[in-house]
Amino acid sequence: MSYFRPEIEAMSAYEPGEQRQGKIIKLNTNENPYPCSPRVQQAIARASERGLERYPDLTATAFRVRAGEVLGVDPDWILCGNGSDDILTIVTRALVGRGETVRAPTPSYILYKTLAEIQGAHFEEVAFAEDWSLDDNFAAAGNDLKLVYLANPNSPSGTVISPERILQLAERLPCPLLVDEAYVDFAEQNCLALVAQNEKILVSRSLSKSYALAGLRFGFLVAQPQMIEQFLKVKDSYNCGALAIAAATAAVDDQAWLRENRTKILATRTRLIENLRRLGFDPPDSSGNFVWTPGTSVPVRPFYEQLKAAGIFVRYMEYPSWGEGLRISVGTDEQIDACLSQLSNMV
Amino acid sequence: MSYFRPEIEAMSAYEPGEQRQGKIIKLNTNENPYPCSPRVQQAIARASERGLERYPDLTATAFRVRAGEVLGVDPDWILCGNGSDDILTIVTRALVGRGETVRAPTPSYILYKTLAEIQGAHFEEVAFAEDWSLDDNFAAAGNDLKLVYLANPNSPSGTVISPERILQLAERLPCPLLVDEAYVDFAEQNCLALVAQNEKILVSRSLSKSYALAGLRFGFLVAQPQMIEQFLKVKDSYNCGALAIAAATAAVDDQAWLRENRTKILATRTRLIENLRRLGFDPPDSSGNFVWTPGTSVPVRPFYEQLKAAGIFVRYMEYPSWGEGLRISVGTDEQIDACLSQLSNMV
Repeated sequence: MSYFRPEIEAMSAYEPGEQRQGKIIKLNTNENPYPCSPRVQQAIARASERGLERYPDLTATAFRVRAGEVLGVDPDWILCGNGSDDILTIVTRALVGRGETVRAPTPSYILYKTLAEIQGAHFEEVAFAEDWSLDDNFAAAGNDLKLVYLANPNSPSGTVISPERILQLAERLPCPLLVDEAYVDFAEQNCLALVAQNEKILVSRSLSKSYALAGLRFGFLVAQPQMIEQFLKVKDSYNCGALAIAAATAAVDDQAWLRENRTKILATRTRLIENLRRLGFDPPDSSGNFVWTPGTSVPVRPFYEQLKAAGIFVRYMEYPSWGEGLRISVGTDEQIDACLSQLSNMV
Repeated sequence: MSYFRPEIEAMSAYEPGEQRQGKIIKLNTNENPYPCSPRVQQAIARASERGLERYPDLTATAFRVRAGEVLGVDPDWILCGNGSDDILTIVTRALVGRGETVRAPTPSYILYKTLAEIQGAHFEEVAFAEDWSLDDNFAAAGNDLKLVYLANPNSPSGTVISPERILQLAERLPCPLLVDEAYVDFAEQNCLALVAQNEKILVSRSLSKSYALAGLRFGFLVAQPQMIEQFLKVKDSYNCGALAIAAATAAVDDQAWLRENRTKILATRTRLIENLRRLGFDPPDSSGNFVWTPGTSVPVRPFYEQLKAAGIFVRYMEYPSWGEGLRISVGTDEQIDACLSQLSNMV
């Protein structure tokens, strides 16, 4: 006999990229290859010394105030989470009930489907056009459509939809549009300014990639305050720990570190794309800290297998209605050189 | 127009005990008044030095292995969470759908009702008997009953139901029974051994109280592996950060610290209960790190107000069908003396 909700029994668990220890080159989960700002470590040490016996601040006020200054956003428009996965979970639980519909583009972040499945909701995919744009079908009214996800920059493609187009799509949609900006610090534009223009626009951010803090778990949502008020009901009261709040506040405070790190990643990204193209691959321009190599002309699975055998982990992804590809995270120059050198032996 | 699920719009947010900073005596949220084991701080420093740019271990293996040894449980029977609130959320989402029923005793932890409301489920309360036992109604088959919560030791009463009785109740129930052992390290018995006897028995634990780590956010579930397997589908992939995993592992490794801290808390608890009785209050014996003072003979609200005016925060709680009371956390001897001295001026 099963005690579980039928939706839970029926679903498969979300499978994140493989986490391996040891002497490997890990380019499969879009982590930042550089250590975080040293101010983060100082903040963690101070928070640890202050003691952990008290509950943390319920809404991570220190972070919201500092991030608000840096981003030009009122702190009451910010909701903090235990990683941006926590934010996506909160938003989905607040908006989507059983039998209702969630939409996302494809190929995109596969967690969106898992979140819809947990709610017992229908998951509807709208394919990107060949040039990675989204046509008006993406904004069509749907049967009980309650939430639309849009990773921007998108993973795995690294491509972006412009803020102007996103505003257009949101205005047509009957429900909120969550713009998942996990990778936006590596892009040229973002959608923060749209939040004030339409309450349906929700923007999520992560400190995992651009602040090199995947191990910490900290993300946040920017939305209008009447939206935040409802989302707050769904979050666990103390969803962000005291060490994470202190660390995240110090990270967002160090914008000089962010700029410098971004410059390095972008330079390596350019080199990676240029060399992949030289080798005959066809990656689109990327606005993330990763590059997508679709298996359009040649199958890419053999490249994945041989890289893995050489201790270089990239992400092989296959989308049922779309095709396969390799997503290569932008590592250090040395790591990317090792990866390119392996690939060049194979083509 | 509202975009939210009607259940979310209709509900009020869970209200945790007030978190105040500054020169107050805080006896309202059952925090441990002593700092955590120094080994925890060392572990945090080491984890911070190793760097946070990588994602943490998906299932906090290091913690599960060490906790498994300490508790005599197979690591595969353990699921880790971002505080035990995360565990309660995961279990509720996995088991309970809209329109189904969740049961808990009253008076008890008020978060259970919030978790049921978020799922759109009915919340059914069964009153404790006068001697704080639970009669067979607690185990009655119910309409679409999918989950039963039992805080043991119970909050706010501090009372316990014996493992033998809990096994009896679980055997009669048609659904899982979550035994919330957040306070069990301050009690004489626990239900871990029952988990192997009946897959319906789920035991949750927290490091917030007995390990003085409320600020860290770490809790875990002990359940049979076929149950864990389903719960894993619902948790956020990286729900525990690298600092939290390292800190929690070091905490559970230092059982000498736990024993010493427990001895101090229990001695102060005895003094608090004896003195409250001397002053004319009627607290039941407590197996937690707090004492419950029901407003049975005299109203207790004025005591709460005057303590607060004197900078001493205790928790005033009112249960619609039961009545009111003060829940006083066991602080240091000095804090408890200050509280008792204020109370003695008022009676």
